[in-house]
Amino acid sequence: MARLVAEMTMSLDGFIALPDDSVNGLFDWYNNGPVEVPTARPDMTWHVTEASAMHLRRTMSTAGAMLVGRRIFDLTHGWDGRHPIDCPIVVLSHSVPDGWPRDGIPYTFVTTGFADAVRAATALAGDKDVSLAGPDIIRQAIDAGLVEEIRVNLAPWILGHGIRFFDNLAAAPVKLEQTAAIQGDAVTHLYYRVLPRI
Amino acid sequence: MARLVAEMTMSLDGFIALPDDSVNGLFDWYNNGPVEVPTARPDMTWHVTEASAMHLRRTMSTAGAMLVGRRIFDLTHGWDGRHPIDCPIVVLSHSVPDGWPRDGIPYTFVTTGFADAVRAATALAGDKDVSLAGPDIIRQAIDAGLVEEIRVNLAPWILGHGIRFFDNLAAAPVKLEQTAAIQGDAVTHLYYRVLPRI
Repeated sequence: MARLVAEMTMSLDGFIALPDDSVNGLFDWYNNGPVEVPTARPDMTWHVTEASAMHLRRTMSTAGAMLVGRRIFDLTHGWDGRHPIDCPIVVLSHSVPDGWPRDGIPYTFVTTGFADAVRAATALAGDKDVSLAGPDIIRQAIDAGLVEEIRVNLAPWILGHGIRFFDNLAAAPVKLEQTAAIQGDAVTHLYYRVLPRI
Repeated sequence: MARLVAEMTMSLDGFIALPDDSVNGLFDWYNNGPVEVPTARPDMTWHVTEASAMHLRRTMSTAGAMLVGRRIFDLTHGWDGRHPIDCPIVVLSHSVPDGWPRDGIPYTFVTTGFADAVRAATALAGDKDVSLAGPDIIRQAIDAGLVEEIRVNLAPWILGHGIRFFDNLAAAPVKLEQTAAIQGDAVTHLYYRVLPRI
Protein backbone atom coordinates (compact mmCIF):
# COMPACT_ATOMS: atom_id res chain seq x y z
CA MET A 1 0.00 0.00 0.00
CA ALA A 2 1.10 3.53 -0.71
CA ARG A 3 3.30 5.25 1.86
CA LEU A 4 2.66 8.92 2.67
CA VAL A 5 5.80 11.02 2.18
CA ALA A 6 5.96 14.71 3.10
CA GLU A 7 8.47 16.83 1.22
CA MET A 8 9.12 20.55 1.13
CA THR A 9 11.98 23.02 0.82
CA MET A 10 12.60 24.83 4.11
CA SER A 11 14.88 27.55 5.47
CA LEU A 12 17.19 26.78 8.38
CA ASP A 13 14.72 28.50 10.70
CA GLY A 14 11.81 26.42 9.48
CA PHE A 15 10.01 28.54 6.89
CA ILE A 16 8.78 27.41 3.47
CA ALA A 17 7.92 30.91 2.31
CA LEU A 18 7.80 34.53 3.40
CA PRO A 19 4.45 35.89 4.63
CA ASP A 20 3.56 37.02 1.08
CA ASP A 21 4.16 33.45 -0.23
CA SER A 22 7.33 34.43 -2.07
CA VAL A 23 10.20 32.01 -1.55
CA ASN A 24 13.15 34.38 -1.47
CA GLY A 25 16.16 32.23 -2.49
CA LEU A 26 14.86 28.97 -1.05
CA PHE A 27 14.48 27.37 -4.48
CA ASP A 28 17.86 28.47 -5.87
CA TRP A 29 19.07 24.87 -5.68
CA TYR A 30 16.71 23.90 -8.51
CA ASN A 31 18.88 25.86 -10.90
CA ASN A 32 22.48 25.95 -9.75
CA GLY A 33 24.15 22.84 -11.13
CA PRO A 34 25.28 21.14 -14.34
CA VAL A 35 22.93 18.13 -14.33
CA GLU A 36 19.75 18.45 -16.38
CA VAL A 37 16.66 16.94 -14.82
CA PRO A 38 13.72 17.07 -17.24
CA THR A 39 10.25 17.29 -15.72
CA ALA A 40 6.82 16.39 -17.02
CA ARG A 41 6.56 19.98 -18.21
CA PRO A 42 8.26 20.74 -21.54
CA ASP A 43 8.89 24.30 -20.32
CA MET A 44 10.59 23.23 -17.09
CA THR A 45 13.97 21.56 -16.78
CA TRP A 46 15.92 21.69 -13.55
CA HIS A 47 19.70 22.18 -13.54
CA VAL A 48 21.17 20.85 -10.34
CA THR A 49 24.14 19.08 -8.78
CA GLU A 50 24.46 15.32 -9.24
CA ALA A 51 23.47 14.89 -5.59
CA SER A 52 20.28 16.91 -6.02
CA ALA A 53 19.55 15.17 -9.32
CA MET A 54 19.67 11.83 -7.54
CA HIS A 55 17.26 13.17 -4.94
CA LEU A 56 14.86 14.64 -7.51
CA ARG A 57 14.86 11.47 -9.61
CA ARG A 58 14.01 9.48 -6.50
CA THR A 59 11.13 11.81 -5.62
CA MET A 60 9.81 11.77 -9.18
CA SER A 61 10.08 8.03 -9.66
CA THR A 62 8.53 7.08 -6.31
CA ALA A 63 5.57 9.46 -6.36
CA GLY A 64 2.44 7.62 -7.45
CA ALA A 65 0.14 10.49 -6.56
CA MET A 66 0.33 13.87 -4.90
CA LEU A 67 -1.94 15.18 -2.20
CA VAL A 68 -1.97 18.96 -1.91
CA GLY A 69 -4.05 21.69 -0.33
CA ARG A 70 -6.14 24.22 -2.14
CA ARG A 71 -3.77 27.02 -1.20
CA ILE A 72 -0.84 25.58 -3.17
CA PHE A 73 -3.16 24.71 -6.03
CA ASP A 74 -4.30 28.34 -6.25
CA LEU A 75 -0.83 29.80 -5.76
CA THR A 76 0.54 27.75 -8.65
CA HIS A 77 -2.58 28.22 -10.78
CA GLY A 78 -2.94 24.45 -10.71
CA TRP A 79 0.50 24.16 -12.29
CA ASP A 80 -1.23 25.27 -15.48
CA GLY A 81 -2.69 21.80 -15.71
CA ARG A 82 0.63 19.98 -15.64
CA HIS A 83 2.61 19.34 -12.49
CA PRO A 84 6.36 18.82 -12.99
CA ILE A 85 5.97 15.38 -11.44
CA ASP A 86 4.00 13.23 -13.84
CA CYS A 87 1.42 11.70 -11.53
CA PRO A 88 -2.24 12.13 -10.54
CA ILE A 89 -2.93 14.96 -8.14
CA VAL A 90 -5.53 15.10 -5.40
CA VAL A 91 -6.53 18.54 -4.19
CA LEU A 92 -8.21 18.82 -0.80
CA SER A 93 -10.52 21.82 -0.87
CA HIS A 94 -13.77 23.14 0.54
CA SER A 95 -15.06 23.58 -3.00
CA VAL A 96 -14.12 22.61 -6.53
CA PRO A 97 -12.33 25.55 -8.16
CA ASP A 98 -14.02 27.25 -11.10
CA GLY A 99 -13.17 25.61 -14.40
CA TRP A 100 -12.13 22.31 -12.86
CA PRO A 101 -11.90 19.37 -13.38
CA ARG A 102 -10.69 19.44 -16.98
CA ASP A 103 -10.59 16.70 -19.57
CA GLY A 104 -7.29 14.89 -19.80
CA ILE A 105 -5.84 16.47 -16.67
CA PRO A 106 -5.44 13.94 -13.84
CA TYR A 107 -6.52 16.16 -10.97
CA THR A 108 -9.10 15.00 -8.45
CA PHE A 109 -10.86 17.46 -6.15
CA VAL A 110 -11.99 16.15 -2.78
CA THR A 111 -14.40 18.34 -0.80
CA THR A 112 -15.39 15.82 1.85
CA GLY A 113 -12.41 16.13 4.13
CA PHE A 114 -8.88 14.98 4.78
CA ALA A 115 -9.61 11.27 5.29
CA ASP A 116 -11.36 11.02 1.93
CA ALA A 117 -8.53 12.88 0.24
CA VAL A 118 -6.00 10.42 1.68
CA ARG A 119 -8.12 7.51 0.50
CA ALA A 120 -8.36 8.94 -3.01
CA ALA A 121 -4.62 9.65 -3.23
CA THR A 122 -3.70 6.26 -1.80
CA ALA A 123 -5.88 4.47 -4.33
CA LEU A 124 -4.35 6.45 -7.18
CA ALA A 125 -0.77 5.87 -6.00
CA GLY A 126 -1.00 2.08 -6.10
CA ASP A 127 2.33 0.62 -4.95
CA LYS A 128 4.08 3.95 -5.11
CA ASP A 129 4.14 6.81 -2.59
CA VAL A 130 1.65 9.55 -1.94
CA SER A 131 3.69 12.74 -1.97
CA LEU A 132 2.30 15.40 0.38
CA ALA A 133 2.85 19.09 -0.22
CA GLY A 134 1.66 22.06 1.81
CA PRO A 135 2.13 22.56 5.54
CA ASP A 136 -1.55 22.24 6.40
CA ILE A 137 -1.95 18.90 4.62
CA ILE A 138 1.30 17.68 6.16
CA ARG A 139 0.22 18.78 9.63
CA GLN A 140 -3.03 16.86 9.35
CA ALA A 141 -1.24 13.78 8.07
CA ILE A 142 1.38 13.84 10.85
CA ASP A 143 -1.30 14.38 13.48
CA ALA A 144 -3.22 11.41 12.07
CA GLY A 145 -0.08 9.27 12.36
CA LEU A 146 -0.07 8.59 8.62
CA VAL A 147 3.25 10.05 7.47
CA GLU A 148 6.00 7.46 7.06
CA GLU A 149 8.75 9.66 5.70
CA ILE A 150 9.64 13.35 5.80
CA ARG A 151 12.04 14.82 3.26
CA VAL A 152 13.31 18.30 3.91
CA ASN A 153 15.27 20.21 1.31
CA LEU A 154 17.08 22.48 3.74
CA ALA A 155 18.07 25.76 2.14
CA PRO A 156 20.80 28.05 3.51
CA TRP A 157 18.64 30.94 4.60
CA ILE A 158 17.33 32.38 7.82
CA LEU A 159 14.06 33.93 6.70
CA GLY A 160 12.97 35.30 10.07
CA HIS A 161 9.26 35.13 9.41
CA GLY A 162 6.73 33.57 7.09
CA ILE A 163 4.93 30.26 6.71
CA ARG A 164 6.37 27.39 8.71
CA PHE A 165 6.82 23.82 7.47
CA PHE A 166 5.83 22.46 10.90
CA ASP A 167 3.32 24.41 12.95
CA ASN A 168 0.55 23.67 15.42
CA LEU A 169 1.25 19.96 15.47
CA ALA A 170 -0.94 18.23 18.00
CA ALA A 171 1.22 15.09 17.72
CA ALA A 172 4.47 16.82 18.79
CA PRO A 173 6.97 15.91 20.03
CA VAL A 174 7.50 13.56 17.10
CA LYS A 175 10.58 11.37 17.10
CA LEU A 176 12.26 10.81 13.76
CA GLU A 177 15.00 8.55 12.50
CA GLN A 178 17.32 10.23 10.09
CA THR A 179 18.03 7.93 7.15
CA ALA A 180 19.99 10.19 4.81
CA ALA A 181 21.62 13.58 4.47
CA ILE A 182 22.51 14.33 0.87
CA GLN A 183 24.50 17.50 0.38
CA GLY A 184 23.82 19.44 -2.79
CA ASP A 185 24.80 23.00 -3.52
CA ALA A 186 22.74 25.48 -1.50
CA VAL A 187 20.65 22.60 -0.19
CA THR A 188 20.88 19.51 1.97
CA HIS A 189 18.30 16.82 1.33
CA LEU A 190 17.39 15.33 4.70
CA TYR A 191 15.40 12.10 4.88
CA TYR A 192 13.60 11.05 8.05
CA ARG A 193 11.48 8.07 8.96
CA VAL A 194 8.67 9.02 11.34
CA LEU A 195 8.85 6.73 14.34
CA PRO A 196 5.69 5.35 15.91
CA ARG A 197 4.47 7.19 18.94
CA ILE A 198 5.27 5.50 22.23
CA MET B 1 41.22 38.35 15.25
CA ALA B 2 38.71 36.01 16.78
CA ARG B 3 35.76 34.91 14.67
CA LEU B 4 32.32 34.66 16.27
CA VAL B 5 30.81 31.21 15.78
CA ALA B 6 27.28 30.34 16.88
CA GLU B 7 26.56 26.72 17.69
CA MET B 8 23.57 24.96 19.17
CA THR B 9 21.66 21.70 18.91
CA MET B 10 18.26 22.21 17.29
CA SER B 11 15.19 20.17 16.38
CA LEU B 12 14.06 19.93 12.77
CA ASP B 13 11.38 22.52 13.52
CA GLY B 14 13.86 24.98 14.99
CA PHE B 15 13.70 24.50 18.75
CA ILE B 16 16.63 24.21 21.14
CA ALA B 17 14.47 23.21 24.12
CA LEU B 18 10.91 22.70 25.23
CA PRO B 19 9.16 25.59 27.03
CA ASP B 20 10.34 24.24 30.41
CA ASP B 21 13.99 24.24 29.20
CA SER B 22 14.17 20.45 29.04
CA VAL B 23 15.76 19.16 25.85
CA ASN B 24 13.68 16.04 25.23
CA GLY B 25 15.94 13.76 23.13
CA LEU B 26 17.81 16.56 21.35
CA PHE B 27 21.11 15.71 23.04
CA ASP B 28 20.94 11.93 22.51
CA TRP B 29 23.70 12.20 19.94
CA TYR B 30 26.21 13.03 22.69
CA ASN B 31 25.92 9.49 23.94
CA ASN B 32 25.10 7.08 21.14
CA GLY B 33 28.39 6.04 19.58
CA PRO B 34 31.59 4.11 20.20
CA VAL B 35 34.11 6.98 20.10
CA GLU B 36 35.13 8.46 23.44
CA VAL B 37 35.54 12.22 23.48
CA PRO B 38 36.91 13.40 26.81
CA THR B 39 35.96 16.88 27.94
CA ALA B 40 37.54 19.32 30.37
CA ARG B 41 35.30 17.82 33.04
CA PRO B 42 36.53 14.57 34.59
CA ASP B 43 32.91 13.52 35.14
CA MET B 44 31.89 14.06 31.54
CA THR B 45 32.98 11.97 28.56
CA TRP B 46 30.95 11.92 25.37
CA HIS B 47 30.44 8.71 23.42
CA VAL B 48 29.63 9.50 19.83
CA THR B 49 30.08 8.39 16.24
CA GLU B 50 33.40 9.11 14.54
CA ALA B 51 31.65 11.83 12.50
CA SER B 52 30.35 13.56 15.61
CA ALA B 53 33.71 13.10 17.35
CA MET B 54 35.39 14.93 14.49
CA HIS B 55 32.86 17.73 14.83
CA LEU B 56 33.23 17.96 18.63
CA ARG B 57 37.02 17.96 18.47
CA ARG B 58 36.85 20.79 15.97
CA THR B 59 34.53 22.82 18.17
CA MET B 60 36.66 22.18 21.26
CA SER B 61 39.97 22.92 19.60
CA THR B 62 38.86 26.10 17.86
CA ALA B 63 37.02 27.74 20.75
CA GLY B 64 39.25 30.34 22.39
CA ALA B 65 36.47 31.72 24.54
CA MET B 66 32.74 31.30 24.97
CA LEU B 67 30.17 34.05 25.16
CA VAL B 68 26.93 33.01 26.80
CA GLY B 69 23.85 34.59 28.30
CA ARG B 70 22.88 34.62 31.94
CA ARG B 71 20.00 32.27 31.29
CA ILE B 72 22.23 29.38 30.18
CA PHE B 73 24.64 30.15 32.99
CA ASP B 74 21.85 29.81 35.54
CA LEU B 75 20.28 26.75 33.93
CA THR B 76 23.58 24.88 34.02
CA HIS B 77 24.55 26.24 37.45
CA GLY B 78 27.58 27.77 35.81
CA TRP B 79 28.62 24.30 34.69
CA ASP B 80 29.63 23.78 38.33
CA GLY B 81 32.62 25.96 37.63
CA ARG B 82 33.98 23.89 34.79
CA HIS B 83 32.60 24.01 31.27
CA PRO B 84 33.22 20.87 29.16
CA ILE B 85 35.14 23.06 26.71
CA ASP B 86 38.32 24.18 28.38
CA CYS B 87 38.31 27.89 27.63
CA PRO B 88 37.50 31.20 29.31
CA ILE B 89 33.82 32.03 29.51
CA VAL B 90 32.19 35.43 29.29
CA VAL B 91 28.70 35.74 30.75
CA LEU B 92 26.56 38.68 29.64
CA SER B 93 24.22 39.57 32.46
CA HIS B 94 22.42 42.48 34.07
CA SER B 95 24.11 41.67 37.35
CA VAL B 96 26.94 39.50 38.66
CA PRO B 97 25.44 36.32 40.10
CA ASP B 98 25.81 35.74 43.83
CA GLY B 99 29.03 33.97 44.70
CA TRP B 100 30.79 34.90 41.49
CA PRO B 101 33.49 35.39 40.28
CA ARG B 102 35.50 32.64 41.98
CA ASP B 103 39.22 32.17 42.28
CA GLY B 104 40.72 29.93 39.64
CA ILE B 105 37.59 29.77 37.51
CA PRO B 106 38.00 31.61 34.20
CA TYR B 107 34.55 33.19 34.04
CA THR B 108 34.12 36.89 33.31
CA PHE B 109 30.83 38.66 34.02
CA VAL B 110 29.99 41.62 31.84
CA THR B 111 27.14 43.85 32.99
CA THR B 112 27.69 46.77 30.63
CA GLY B 113 26.03 45.35 27.56
CA PHE B 114 26.49 43.16 24.52
CA ALA B 115 29.23 45.16 22.83
CA ASP B 116 31.43 45.05 25.91
CA ALA B 117 30.82 41.32 26.27
CA VAL B 118 31.91 40.76 22.67
CA ARG B 119 35.03 42.84 23.25
CA ALA B 120 35.90 40.85 26.38
CA ALA B 121 35.35 37.49 24.70
CA THR B 122 37.25 38.50 21.59
CA ALA B 123 40.23 39.64 23.65
CA LEU B 124 40.23 36.36 25.58
CA ALA B 125 39.92 34.21 22.46
CA GLY B 126 43.07 35.55 20.82
CA ASP B 127 43.52 33.88 17.43
CA LYS B 128 40.85 31.31 18.13
CA ASP B 129 37.05 31.57 17.84
CA VAL B 130 34.51 33.05 20.19
CA SER B 131 31.87 30.36 20.56
CA LEU B 132 28.39 31.80 21.11
CA ALA B 133 25.70 29.88 22.97
CA GLY B 134 22.15 30.87 23.77
CA PRO B 135 19.56 32.16 21.31
CA ASP B 136 19.43 35.67 22.72
CA ILE B 137 23.20 36.18 22.51
CA ILE B 138 23.21 34.69 19.02
CA ARG B 139 20.32 36.90 17.90
CA GLN B 140 22.14 40.03 19.04
CA ALA B 141 25.34 38.91 17.36
CA ILE B 142 23.62 38.12 14.05
CA ASP B 143 21.73 41.40 14.13
CA ALA B 144 25.01 43.22 14.74
CA GLY B 145 26.51 41.49 11.68
CA LEU B 146 29.22 39.89 13.81
CA VAL B 147 28.61 36.16 13.34
CA GLU B 148 30.89 34.54 10.76
CA GLU B 149 29.79 30.94 11.11
CA ILE B 150 26.70 29.09 12.32
CA ARG B 151 26.93 25.44 13.31
CA VAL B 152 23.66 23.61 13.84
CA ASN B 153 23.56 20.14 15.32
CA LEU B 154 20.27 19.13 13.77
CA ALA B 155 18.49 16.51 15.85
CA PRO B 156 15.76 14.22 14.48
CA TRP B 157 12.83 15.59 16.44
CA ILE B 158 9.83 17.78 15.77
CA LEU B 159 9.30 19.40 19.15
CA GLY B 160 6.26 21.47 18.25
CA HIS B 161 6.90 24.25 20.73
CA GLY B 162 9.59 25.66 22.96
CA ILE B 163 12.54 28.00 22.65
CA ARG B 164 13.67 28.71 19.12
CA PHE B 165 17.29 28.89 17.94
CA PHE B 166 16.44 31.78 15.61
CA ASP B 167 13.74 34.20 16.65
CA ASN B 168 12.98 37.90 16.28
CA LEU B 169 15.97 38.52 14.05
CA ALA B 170 15.98 42.10 12.82
CA ALA B 171 18.62 41.20 10.24
CA ALA B 172 16.51 38.51 8.50
CA PRO B 173 16.44 37.35 5.80
CA VAL B 174 20.06 36.27 6.26
CA LYS B 175 21.76 34.46 3.41
CA LEU B 176 24.10 31.63 4.36
CA GLU B 177 26.60 29.52 2.50
CA GLN B 178 26.56 25.92 3.56
CA THR B 179 30.11 24.65 3.94
CA ALA B 180 29.57 21.19 5.43
CA ALA B 181 26.94 18.62 6.36
CA ILE B 182 28.41 15.91 8.56
CA GLN B 183 26.05 13.04 9.26
CA GLY B 184 26.33 11.44 12.66
CA ASP B 185 23.82 9.16 14.31
CA ALA B 186 20.69 11.03 15.39
CA VAL B 187 22.34 14.29 14.34
CA THR B 188 23.60 16.13 11.30
CA HIS B 189 26.22 18.77 11.89
CA LEU B 190 25.51 21.63 9.50
CA TYR B 191 28.11 24.36 8.98
CA TYR B 192 27.17 27.69 7.44
CA ARG B 193 29.12 30.81 6.62
CA VAL B 194 27.05 33.96 7.17
CA LEU B 195 27.17 36.00 3.98
CA PRO B 196 27.49 39.77 4.11
CA ARG B 197 24.26 41.66 3.74
CA ILE B 198 23.75 43.15 0.28
